[in-house]
Amino acid sequence: MSIIHTNPIGIFDSGIGGLTATHALTKLLPNENIVYFGDTAHAPYGDKSTTAIQEYSTKICDMLLQQNCKLILIACNSASAVAFDLIKAHVGNKVKVLDVIDPVVNYISQKYQATSIGLIGTKTTINSNIYQKKIDALGLDITVHSLATPLLVPVIEETGLTAIELIKDIIKGYLSNPKLADINALILGCTHYPLIKPIINEFYQNKVNIIDASQIVAHAVKQQLTADNLLNPEPRHTMKFYISDYTDAFAATAKLFFQEQLHLELYPLWE
Amino acid sequence: MSIIHTNPIGIFDSGIGGLTATHALTKLLPNENIVYFGDTAHAPYGDKSTTAIQEYSTKICDMLLQQNCKLILIACNSASAVAFDLIKAHVGNKVKVLDVIDPVVNYISQKYQATSIGLIGTKTTINSNIYQKKIDALGLDITVHSLATPLLVPVIEETGLTAIELIKDIIKGYLSNPKLADINALILGCTHYPLIKPIINEFYQNKVNIIDASQIVAHAVKQQLTADNLLNPEPRHTMKFYISDYTDAFAATAKLFFQEQLHLELYPLWE
Repeated sequence: MSIIHTNPIGIFDSGIGGLTATHALTKLLPNENIVYFGDTAHAPYGDKSTTAIQEYSTKICDMLLQQNCKLILIACNSASAVAFDLIKAHVGNKVKVLDVIDPVVNYISQKYQATSIGLIGTKTTINSNIYQKKIDALGLDITVHSLATPLLVPVIEETGLTAIELIKDIIKGYLSNPKLADINALILGCTHYPLIKPIINEFYQNKVNIIDASQIVAHAVKQQLTADNLLNPEPRHTMKFYISDYTDAFAATAKLFFQEQLHLELYPLWE
Repeated sequence: MSIIHTNPIGIFDSGIGGLTATHALTKLLPNENIVYFGDTAHAPYGDKSTTAIQEYSTKICDMLLQQNCKLILIACNSASAVAFDLIKAHVGNKVKVLDVIDPVVNYISQKYQATSIGLIGTKTTINSNIYQKKIDALGLDITVHSLATPLLVPVIEETGLTAIELIKDIIKGYLSNPKLADINALILGCTHYPLIKPIINEFYQNKVNIIDASQIVAHAVKQQLTADNLLNPEPRHTMKFYISDYTDAFAATAKLFFQEQLHLELYPLWE
């Protein structure tokens, strides 16, 4: 079966995080059709084992292939960190698979030679040491100073804690860690984190560049589709969001991003 | 098939929270055999939908019945809040099922007539309004002032945030909420929370009674087994912990509670 231009881009994440990259993608590529899968039944991936994340990811990719996706984007750093190679092997030459780490590594390789870069992310992402490994594999003189910041996802998803000062204190508590001293830039190594970028910028008083993967990844997808001559010339007709557990929290956040365009549906992939 | 005294007590939770009640139970009833199931693949339950929690809970109960459990304890407030009635109907008269809410409601009905009680828990538990409903059903003059505190589970599971003061600030941020003013006691409506009881006591300077379900629930189990003449007269020979996703975090916490006695095994209930 040949791939058709009008086929959708398939995107997945454990939950709402991937919506940041999806939002950037739909702005940059307004014609592209989208099928999104949020694995809310297993969210968050950041605390799950490598084996579990690999198993969930491959099953989700099978579902996206069944939906005739022309490209798959792993819009989750934890899955990108521990399942990207396996997913590429699993998908084979059916479609191209992109993750959210390689585009960022390519980006910093051009802009941050011979510097120290900070990285914050989930335990899974940080423990994988994947950013430093990929940087070393490219022979780059960049040192990554990383810190697991597992409270940030729940902080972002928490809406009842009215004290914004407290949220700022939590972020300050993490970013004041000596591990992150003397960095030239900070990678937001979790697709949730762009949602608190203003608070992070405030902490650094705009003196440290914040590397937000969503824009970078959107450009990488555009580049790949252009290279493969797969950009959609026709207006978008499909933007579907499937989730493995229907929660009000996901619906509310997705609506913030996509308003009335939102087609959200429970997809019982694990039943 | 008749129930045998030596059969184990079956206990489940979404993850490590239920270990607090399990620990209290093993101290109070040193002869009892234990089979524990931690649904780490779907943890935390506090963010999942009612439908999902009901589905996971019934499947776990089937597994515990296959293990010949003589009694099932739902050691998770979220599951107790939204799945207890369904589980009882599902299990039928095979074995008795206990939750972690009814024993606490019975306890406060005896000690806190005509007072205001605070309650903290997950979004699922608080939104269910289950404590107030059960209190009203008993015709008690007790008002429950409840607050969802979804950051507390991740705070408890967070070990990298070295600043204990920050954790205290988060707890202070929640407990200073006007909703919890003028309470006579505070129910810890999540089986994780006993792990931060000392910090909560410090906040209240021991002036508010903290109601920790783990001891109360252990006594309720003892009472039920005594009434049914099912207490185990023989020394314990089995204490098994099964989890649906094997993570180092669970193993580390479980070891803190049960040291060398720990038999921990991956049980792929959803594969």
